[in-house]
Amino acid sequence: MDCIFCGIVSGAIPSTRIYEDEGAIAFMDINPGTRGHALVIPRSHFRDIHDIDPEVLAHVAKVAQRVAGAARTALAADGVNLVQSSGAAAFQSVFHIHFHVIPRYEDDDVRLPWCPRPADPADLRAQAEKIRGAM
Amino acid sequence: MDCIFCGIVSGAIPSTRIYEDEGAIAFMDINPGTRGHALVIPRSHFRDIHDIDPEVLAHVAKVAQRVAGAARTALAADGVNLVQSSGAAAFQSVFHIHFHVIPRYEDDDVRLPWCPRPADPADLRAQAEKIRGAM
Repeated sequence: MDCIFCGIVSGAIPSTRIYEDEGAIAFMDINPGTRGHALVIPRSHFRDIHDIDPEVLAHVAKVAQRVAGAARTALAADGVNLVQSSGAAAFQSVFHIHFHVIPRYEDDDVRLPWCPRPADPADLRAQAEKIRGAM
Repeated sequence: MDCIFCGIVSGAIPSTRIYEDEGAIAFMDINPGTRGHALVIPRSHFRDIHDIDPEVLAHVAKVAQRVAGAARTALAADGVNLVQSSGAAAFQSVFHIHFHVIPRYEDDDVRLPWCPRPADPADLRAQAEKIRGAM
């Protein structure tokens, strides 16, 4: 399979690992946004949030929590963002699901990715109705 | 308790709900970044990713996955981002843990929140060693 993260799982592609267990591994992002920026992935190949087995997702989330806590402690971070991108339209570039764990510092240059704008309540109700119908 | 999301859980504060179960609720963000932007929260009050019970986190992640899938289907989204912010330095403004579920569209104006820059491998190894030591 031509998946760079499957190569990292197998060891065929080198990475700087932080953590590994039977279900997930965590390693440093080689193009970090901040000091300590890491990725958490399942060992098994799943494409994105729509594809991943919910129990595997639950495990990956718990590992991301542990990495977030360790990064805060070890690097004296002031906060942390978890970011998961599913789909090219959402910035996904490696199609093996991954969670970014991004330690945050008062003086870093990470930006809020969206521009919050007050919504029309009727629009929100209409969107909610559609989403509820698909749950 | 003076927590707006606890007020939403109890019903004292109105919200446009998408989903609810014994452990979590999902509702529309009133200041959305994109069409269908929703929040998923645990019913119980936890401050952030460091504070939340791992089993509750696992459940919230599974609900976020379901909301993401439903939003994609219902709104014909091209992708989705999950974002969790822990700490004021990470953009957290309501201190009851929440996951943003942000449907993405080819033509939306959401930005990548960080600027990826190649890191010095020795720096990555040093950071990883520190984080590993705190896991």
